[in-house]
Amino acid sequence: MNVFVVGVGLIGGSFVKDLKAKMPKATVYGIDANAKHLEEALSLGLIDVIATYDELPLADFVMVSIPVDVIVQELPKILDRVHEGCVVCDAGSTKELLCKVLESHPKRRNFLACHPIAGTEFSGPSSAINGLYDGKTNIICEVEKTAFTLQEKALEIFKLLGMRIRYMNPKAHDKHIAYVSHLSHISSFMLGKTVIEKERNERDIFDMAGSGFESTVRLAKSSPAMWTPIFRQNKENVIETLAEYIQNLTEFKELLLKDDYEGIYNEMNNTNKIKTILKGLPAKKGN
Amino acid sequence: MNVFVVGVGLIGGSFVKDLKAKMPKATVYGIDANAKHLEEALSLGLIDVIATYDELPLADFVMVSIPVDVIVQELPKILDRVHEGCVVCDAGSTKELLCKVLESHPKRRNFLACHPIAGTEFSGPSSAINGLYDGKTNIICEVEKTAFTLQEKALEIFKLLGMRIRYMNPKAHDKHIAYVSHLSHISSFMLGKTVIEKERNERDIFDMAGSGFESTVRLAKSSPAMWTPIFRQNKENVIETLAEYIQNLTEFKELLLKDDYEGIYNEMNNTNKIKTILKGLPAKKGN
Repeated sequence: MNVFVVGVGLIGGSFVKDLKAKMPKATVYGIDANAKHLEEALSLGLIDVIATYDELPLADFVMVSIPVDVIVQELPKILDRVHEGCVVCDAGSTKELLCKVLESHPKRRNFLACHPIAGTEFSGPSSAINGLYDGKTNIICEVEKTAFTLQEKALEIFKLLGMRIRYMNPKAHDKHIAYVSHLSHISSFMLGKTVIEKERNERDIFDMAGSGFESTVRLAKSSPAMWTPIFRQNKENVIETLAEYIQNLTEFKELLLKDDYEGIYNEMNNTNKIKTILKGLPAKKGN
Repeated sequence: MNVFVVGVGLIGGSFVKDLKAKMPKATVYGIDANAKHLEEALSLGLIDVIATYDELPLADFVMVSIPVDVIVQELPKILDRVHEGCVVCDAGSTKELLCKVLESHPKRRNFLACHPIAGTEFSGPSSAINGLYDGKTNIICEVEKTAFTLQEKALEIFKLLGMRIRYMNPKAHDKHIAYVSHLSHISSFMLGKTVIEKERNERDIFDMAGSGFESTVRLAKSSPAMWTPIFRQNKENVIETLAEYIQNLTEFKELLLKDDYEGIYNEMNNTNKIKTILKGLPAKKGN
């Protein structure tokens, strides 16, 4: 089986790392705009062969793991080149635009729109880790538009990697994910900004910050090149979540200004139920 | 040596857990308003003896680890009862009001105002863990107001537990800690609130949330009974940080509304330097 990975960073690299372990007979071809990343992926053993689009007709399975603005440009070209038994998946954090772009593609049935909810704040081939997808949710959109045998082929691989599958339409996906992922990143980036602006003396941050601060700003280490196009594609949903978040913060500030400490207690107490909600989450890393 | 711990929760419990390991000859007396917590602390081996304020004259070292609204009421009474060679420390997250309250106390020299930057989102004796303070910063305020021999005595214990010491005045402490700790908690609580309000179907949160969301809302599991009085005592600083945070979030929203993606990229790119700032933080748990 010939597996192609387009984009050999954290997401694609971790994907083929586990895949090679579970399917030792698979040959993994890597394609990337960054030649240095390809060399790195090869020397790390993530891929077996450095390839280009010219070799795509050899592919039986393609994972496209590149920033979402590039996915919408590249996926039509990738689909153009694959044979009819090949299934092409992506790992983008937005689904609506991509599904729209591919709507009338002659090889739409070869494409399976995916969003594995997994990642870390790091990027590049050297950040690839084993087991990144184990126990994680993979959201599949418009499954009915993919050829049935190709769905099966992809699901088999996802199962090998330990993923749980959820089906959702692209619009609902983009709306929900704005809340549980995109907003977290903005809240984290702006928290980092607020503290950095105030604490000119970095030594003070270092000395006074505990892991509470560290965990809330962890996502502020994420790649701007990856996240800018996500916010762009999911602009409307993200603005809606941001407005609600700002509103809730403003109300909390109002409670403080009014010395309404019973109100503040209740706000926190009501939100404590996040404990039980999060209890079911897998303990491993994943965005 | 007789060590007293007033408040046998996560903070006090973890403190004496390590202390007993490092100083096996110490006898640890526990005082708590919650009789069940005292029984629990005794059966967990965190304390050797259940005590009351009547036994305080026996104390050589007292750690007061109770919510900050109760500290300001109880610390004067505790100081009233200890002998002149005893040092009393606290672990509160606010320092200005407490130092003010104790300013003219006849036994002010027996008190050392401390804030060990350590904790988790959990509470109660059963959440006490080993090594909570190892490598963590302990901020000491108004050190010059404590008798020199008693400073030494306390520092020896802090050193045994692996803490690093920083000296700061109470006003500066409360201002800085609002940024690196109190604001993180509010940002996390309100993020949790925003998502819970929208995602009525908890199963959706559970399925779509990865550890990115999990780490940014971790602090929303924290105890409202502990945090309400902290926000109350540090109201002015907290309101200032909140206003700046809301302003930064609003500017980010404006950039999105204006489709200024270069601006959005730059915002994130500038904040990425949090990576190098956080690199020096100890990897272990701590608020």
